[in-house]
Amino acid sequence: MTESQRTRRAIVLLSGGLDSATVLAIARAEGFDCLALSFAYGQRHQVELAAARYVAKAFSVVEHRTLDIDLTAFGGSALTDSRIDVPEVPQQGIPVTYVPARNTIFLSLALGWAEVKEVFDIFIGVNAVDYSGYPDCRAEFIRAFETMANLATRAGVEGKPVRIHTPLIDLSKADIIRRGVAAGIDYSHTVSCYQPDPQGGACGRCDSCRVRRQGFLDAGLDDPTRYQG
Amino acid sequence: MTESQRTRRAIVLLSGGLDSATVLAIARAEGFDCLALSFAYGQRHQVELAAARYVAKAFSVVEHRTLDIDLTAFGGSALTDSRIDVPEVPQQGIPVTYVPARNTIFLSLALGWAEVKEVFDIFIGVNAVDYSGYPDCRAEFIRAFETMANLATRAGVEGKPVRIHTPLIDLSKADIIRRGVAAGIDYSHTVSCYQPDPQGGACGRCDSCRVRRQGFLDAGLDDPTRYQG
Repeated sequence: MTESQRTRRAIVLLSGGLDSATVLAIARAEGFDCLALSFAYGQRHQVELAAARYVAKAFSVVEHRTLDIDLTAFGGSALTDSRIDVPEVPQQGIPVTYVPARNTIFLSLALGWAEVKEVFDIFIGVNAVDYSGYPDCRAEFIRAFETMANLATRAGVEGKPVRIHTPLIDLSKADIIRRGVAAGIDYSHTVSCYQPDPQGGACGRCDSCRVRRQGFLDAGLDDPTRYQG
Repeated sequence: MTESQRTRRAIVLLSGGLDSATVLAIARAEGFDCLALSFAYGQRHQVELAAARYVAKAFSVVEHRTLDIDLTAFGGSALTDSRIDVPEVPQQGIPVTYVPARNTIFLSLALGWAEVKEVFDIFIGVNAVDYSGYPDCRAEFIRAFETMANLATRAGVEGKPVRIHTPLIDLSKADIIRRGVAAGIDYSHTVSCYQPDPQGGACGRCDSCRVRRQGFLDAGLDDPTRYQG
């Protein structure tokens, strides 16, 4: 690792789920000092935010900020509208758990913070393999966001381009879990379930739980997830 | 006006300033039913939000939503950090009133609401002439945002592209004012000042006040702005 890498800072979008925790571990392993950004956006699974705080501390982030942004004002997703049930059987097409423009909104806010902090690297845990139904998890979206970001900001104008890092984008869930375990993550402290109980116990039935459980199976590793009941 | 135009809906970003009020009037004149979106983002000039409500009502919007998003958590601008003074002499380069990534953040939230509402037209009052120091007011930024938006959302995936309308982008302030007056806007109810008093009285000294005052002069129209003291 070079000295310049050692002192680079990055903003990491940290939800408290399995993927973003792994991204934080990877960014640390790449030598970045990390600033974590979480959102209280009205999600059903607010226990995620406690998980985010745990993970941020475990990986010694420089700063962890949680921004309030009430996406329930818009609704339109099972995650932000309590009248829409979280499905417990696999869905065709874009699932109802898709939160409209969520990654665009989160990356835009990260971009604003990055500009204030003079940080030029942003990490996000999008993954195109297990969640191919979400349009904003695809590589072409990320590249278009990066192009836009460099026209939107002082950084781009002044010739210090912002880079969006997506270390998980082409990994299977099993590969993500293997990387994270190797980096020392205790996944029992992360919450992936779309409808956890207040203590973070997972339902085991929603799409996110199914993908996570299968990931541990495929990785040949014990699943430390705390399930409900 | 065709029947299909008559029934089209658009989201209009409405700050309560002169430009966005004019954009709303233009969108209405183009036959759109308008949904207005404002932000309480911690701006110094919160009296803008009262102006936004007045203008929204005057132009019969279908719905007006004000979203709370606390950009003071990031700071970095004279508009969102009370420790940074609003300058009263013209600045070189990107001014300190620039709010990092503000238009990216606002357009991203508009995109989320548009997706929930199944609206495919978004209007924003960016202007490249009078505020050339703001990177996110340029046409190339808007086109890059549009490209990104159509990869980010269900709309793009399903072949109903989102369009970002910027009717003011190449107009001088005088031309904007002429268009607005012709469309029936009473600009005395709009607030452009970066540091208005609680009743919306303008300081007359900040950059925004200077550009606005010159616009009325250049347009050869009486300036209805209420100044302080």
